[in-house]
Amino acid sequence: MPSKQRDNQGSARNGSAYPEPVERLIETLARLPGIGRRTAERLAFYVLKSPAEEADRLAAALRDVKRAVRHCRVCYNLTQSDPCPICADGSRDRASVLIVEQPKDCIALEQTGVHRGLYHVLMGRISPLDGVTPAHLTIDDLLARFDDPSRNPGGVRPTEAVLGLNPTLEGDGTALYLAGELRKRGVAVTRLARGLPSGGQLEYVSRAVLADAIAGRQRME
Amino acid sequence: MPSKQRDNQGSARNGSAYPEPVERLIETLARLPGIGRRTAERLAFYVLKSPAEEADRLAAALRDVKRAVRHCRVCYNLTQSDPCPICADGSRDRASVLIVEQPKDCIALEQTGVHRGLYHVLMGRISPLDGVTPAHLTIDDLLARFDDPSRNPGGVRPTEAVLGLNPTLEGDGTALYLAGELRKRGVAVTRLARGLPSGGQLEYVSRAVLADAIAGRQRME
Repeated sequence: MPSKQRDNQGSARNGSAYPEPVERLIETLARLPGIGRRTAERLAFYVLKSPAEEADRLAAALRDVKRAVRHCRVCYNLTQSDPCPICADGSRDRASVLIVEQPKDCIALEQTGVHRGLYHVLMGRISPLDGVTPAHLTIDDLLARFDDPSRNPGGVRPTEAVLGLNPTLEGDGTALYLAGELRKRGVAVTRLARGLPSGGQLEYVSRAVLADAIAGRQRME
Repeated sequence: MPSKQRDNQGSARNGSAYPEPVERLIETLARLPGIGRRTAERLAFYVLKSPAEEADRLAAALRDVKRAVRHCRVCYNLTQSDPCPICADGSRDRASVLIVEQPKDCIALEQTGVHRGLYHVLMGRISPLDGVTPAHLTIDDLLARFDDPSRNPGGVRPTEAVLGLNPTLEGDGTALYLAGELRKRGVAVTRLARGLPSGGQLEYVSRAVLADAIAGRQRME
């Protein structure tokens, strides 16, 4: 068999890389978080094999999401209209604000149908180890809602804050910080209850959950 | 706190799901192989956070790859021009065809610069357990290249076939099948050498590799 006769440039021009559009797709996909080069190659080859309409659908979805979706200027929830439908809904209880870390938390809570007030999305939690300080979050805007009635839907200054942060070390730290700031402003501060997860089995629940459940035991009516 | 006063429809309309473009992006991403709902959500939120140009770049890459890239009509390698640059290159050795499973195998082999002949991409390997028979691959087209000179670049009937399938059970099975069909046609059939991986350490190499290396030991010149 003939051996290396040709310079590498020649073979590179010919076939030692994917066609440019394939290479570009792989590189663009590999920039996504959690997607390595191998996964990006696999996805690119999937797209190559699937009908053009499927690629078009994904391309359109990517464009649309950046064009049509923004954060609500009041509560930072994701929305197509600004303010978002929850802030704009005059039938909701504007005196109560449930404070969460992420837009997806609003969705989970809304699905319960129990909270009838508004929301405020912090866009994260305070995390000194990751360099996330209150200034990186929407905490200034949250506090402004309690300082300045005009920053709220219908000009109603909320009087109750429900802390709905994740039950983690950082979520608890953020909740403590917010509780301090909010109490200074005379706001009634609560947090979501801790206890046994409904539908779970006591024997499989962690010691921390059991401790919460005992400490927060509720009177039977 | 007020409890469920409202029907679920009302809250669903308002905020118990992502805005439609976000939901559509998540669902489209979740259709990709190996991407579950959670990963799709994470990717969608990454896209939401990143600049619009990044989403546009990915959208354009997705569209372009389906428009501009096809399989070479001779060898089934990925290409922007048809036949592909390797098939079209008159300076290559058209008597020799290296047979591989996937387009990415061509690229790996081209990067060595050692093979100066053409390729044929099978688009898979025979796998009875997965229901992949010779008819699902490009084997008919491969054999036609040896039966009909006009099916080859420059009308040259190849006389040598190098089997470059993966060193797996299914790759070996496919190679055996092809070797039989090609020998019927008077083609000289070889396969890529098996042995120690260059740069590896003998102690970490599997028994199967060591067995291959001993059986295929090469005379020192």
